Amino acid sequence: MKLVVIGADAAGMSAASQARKRRTPDKLEIVAFERGNFTSYSACGIPYWISGVVSDRDALVARTPAEFEKAGVRVRMRHEVVAIDLDRREVVARDLEGGGEIREGFDELMYAAGAVPVTPDWARVDGGGVFGVQTLDDGSAIKVWLESDPKPQRAVVIGGGYIGVEMAEAMIKHGLDVTLLEKSSQPMSTVDLDMGERVRAAIDGLGITVRTGAHVQGIETSQGRVRAVVTADGTVPADIVVLGLGVRPNTALAVESGIPVGVTGGLRTDLRMRVVGPEGHVEGLWAAGDCVQTTHRISGQPMHAPLGTHANKQGRVAGINIGGGYATFPGVIGTAVTKVCDLEVARTGLSSKEATRAGFEYVTATVESTSRAGYYPGAETMTVKMIAERRTGRLLGAQIVGREEAAKRIDALAIAVWNEMTVEEMTALDLSYAPPFAPVWDPVLIAARKATDALLAADQG
Amino acid sequence: MKLVVIGADAAGMSAASQARKRRTPDKLEIVAFERGNFTSYSACGIPYWISGVVSDRDALVARTPAEFEKAGVRVRMRHEVVAIDLDRREVVARDLEGGGEIREGFDELMYAAGAVPVTPDWARVDGGGVFGVQTLDDGSAIKVWLESDPKPQRAVVIGGGYIGVEMAEAMIKHGLDVTLLEKSSQPMSTVDLDMGERVRAAIDGLGITVRTGAHVQGIETSQGRVRAVVTADGTVPADIVVLGLGVRPNTALAVESGIPVGVTGGLRTDLRMRVVGPEGHVEGLWAAGDCVQTTHRISGQPMHAPLGTHANKQGRVAGINIGGGYATFPGVIGTAVTKVCDLEVARTGLSSKEATRAGFEYVTATVESTSRAGYYPGAETMTVKMIAERRTGRLLGAQIVGREEAAKRIDALAIAVWNEMTVEEMTALDLSYAPPFAPVWDPVLIAARKATDALLAADQG
Repeated sequence: MKLVVIGADAAGMSAASQARKRRTPDKLEIVAFERGNFTSYSACGIPYWISGVVSDRDALVARTPAEFEKAGVRVRMRHEVVAIDLDRREVVARDLEGGGEIREGFDELMYAAGAVPVTPDWARVDGGGVFGVQTLDDGSAIKVWLESDPKPQRAVVIGGGYIGVEMAEAMIKHGLDVTLLEKSSQPMSTVDLDMGERVRAAIDGLGITVRTGAHVQGIETSQGRVRAVVTADGTVPADIVVLGLGVRPNTALAVESGIPVGVTGGLRTDLRMRVVGPEGHVEGLWAAGDCVQTTHRISGQPMHAPLGTHANKQGRVAGINIGGGYATFPGVIGTAVTKVCDLEVARTGLSSKEATRAGFEYVTATVESTSRAGYYPGAETMTVKMIAERRTGRLLGAQIVGREEAAKRIDALAIAVWNEMTVEEMTALDLSYAPPFAPVWDPVLIAARKATDALLAADQG
Repeated sequence: MKLVVIGADAAGMSAASQARKRRTPDKLEIVAFERGNFTSYSACGIPYWISGVVSDRDALVARTPAEFEKAGVRVRMRHEVVAIDLDRREVVARDLEGGGEIREGFDELMYAAGAVPVTPDWARVDGGGVFGVQTLDDGSAIKVWLESDPKPQRAVVIGGGYIGVEMAEAMIKHGLDVTLLEKSSQPMSTVDLDMGERVRAAIDGLGITVRTGAHVQGIETSQGRVRAVVTADGTVPADIVVLGLGVRPNTALAVESGIPVGVTGGLRTDLRMRVVGPEGHVEGLWAAGDCVQTTHRISGQPMHAPLGTHANKQGRVAGINIGGGYATFPGVIGTAVTKVCDLEVARTGLSSKEATRAGFEYVTATVESTSRAGYYPGAETMTVKMIAERRTGRLLGAQIVGREEAAKRIDALAIAVWNEMTVEEMTALDLSYAPPFAPVWDPVLIAARKATDALLAADQG
């Protein structure tokens, strides 16, 4: 038996490792193809490496090709799979360094080609200094550019999502003048407007110039270097441009081999991460990570959720099943977290906008409290917002903005959302209390109380 | 209508406040009796006030008598209720300052007399310098004693639970030589032995002398001052002795008026916090806080859980019901948290010992991971232990020991326990991930994976 893996990053190599754990090399040969220079690295860590917070690029690599080889997983680096033949059960891979192509037969095929940055036509320019932030190679290129001559002074970051905001902060740490262009009315629009305002204030506080409602029309270059970003409202000079416009599933190869994608552009899979085609799952074809479509457990809608944590879990599930075990991936609930300077931002479940789009009627409750007992030194303001469905009282989503020790508390709310708890039941939760860790009424409990009151008021109204 | 409240601390005054919120003073008169000098204070904060971490005693008082009066709640301070007549619907209270007794009729009676420290006969000594840590008055007395002449040099803390360990650290902060006497094999025995070892190391690291298996037989005094604590293994000199032997429900008054207590010594209540007597609930009699017995939701067993956070919730529930609303308190799951120096310790659900006692068969899984991505600055080691029931795979309990930002993560596990999640399902949880906040596999997820593997191994064995 042979397993071929396309893409040797989180999803692919989690699958390879789990399959190897269950099947010795004499029972299952594993060959992974990777077009890039690295295996299993933390893409989420790139902004922190660029900013200098993390000093060592190699620290971002969880496991090297040599380590995989030692564990009995063959890794062909700088080999790009260019064709999949499902009938003949083989892939064709191009050697990007040595040239030439090789064919590799398979019994099981793990498709983990990841995602590609969204790059509008206007972003496809010849000049140097325009970067995506997708791979370690992108990170290296940015670091080289920042030290190039003449040294860049002005950065424009396009897109105010997680990566955009993290990269804007990284550019500030390099001493650049930074402008962040966001097309909607607020950066970090994955949280509600009232919560986003607090994030916006932190971004402003870093000295980043934020331009919302920005419609980028083009990028100006001269003499091989970027010069400015052109928007509907004027031109912003730039010596470096960072694109934070999100990513889309990298499914071209699968589509060419006859596998249709889902409405989000990602491959459809079943719960075991088997790829689903027009006639049910395709025997021996697996997919995981940024190239697949998953389900939001609260809205019930398909979504594309390109995050390393999902890629690892999905890859693990695929690998367990490939190895003869049984595991399932039940979908996501949209949990995410980041920080801006020392302001922590976290969300789970549905935002107000998402809840509306999904068809829910809901109430919201926002409370300001503190991270520790008010009298305990170091207590920091913390804002918790809850979104609860009318009538049922079910917690649909929650958001937290605060300083030290605030964001990771979203996990408690994520588990409440996952279990479809009502906010009323949540008022009774036995959460941890001691003065150094929480007020006697934990902010989560206060929010649950307020949401319960809001439900009562809504149903009386 | 008149509501009389016995005990003007967390439980009683939460009830008073909620009842007042729903019933105006013309509809409901509220009178609270308090034998002490303070209302609604944070008893959990006392060790931190004694240590000097919290500098202001008044900061521990959430709401003063004057504030309650302003809100339409009459508070009779330094009045101790000495008799309850359920037939005549009145209480008798003694004025501890002015002398004399008053009678107060009631329609509804809220019993919130709290707890009293466990004080063995050997601890009842005439000498000064032996203290419980139950009330703000106790705290004041300790602070005065620490500054008395001759200045105490050697402290002995008896009992290695939360309060004992917190007080031992407070004594170290005052520069004393501190010995902690614990009768079991390890302090902080509310966590499993393997987790407790880590706590023990932190206690040792503070310079506290820990003597386990210690059987205290007496306290020696001379010239009105404590001199030593006598144990079966020898005598430990002491200029101050702090008792951390736990508390028992203060139910004497209720018992005298004919209300039987439960097996834990606490008053039994129904879900709405109505006191339950031999023939069902007693009309118009409510109880909450450290004087009641509650139910552990996982073991199904009655337990005494004297914690401010429960007292507040139970009091709130009683008050809502007294005020004509509807609310219930569904029991606890044994969540608790503290810190020793910078080592954080947290638990929820059942410990191994408790699970065994409750009749469960279970597996355990302990993992060491980090609080942030391993490459992110400030990542600290974190240990997570899970206890899962055999066959069902249900999470019965969990414990966390770690540095910065570790302990409060117990809330996520508490909500998983509360919802009776299986560790298998937990491997798929959508927990927050970003390098400053967690490794890509959150420690909780790694523990869930390991517990799942342990279950599989147990059922194959």
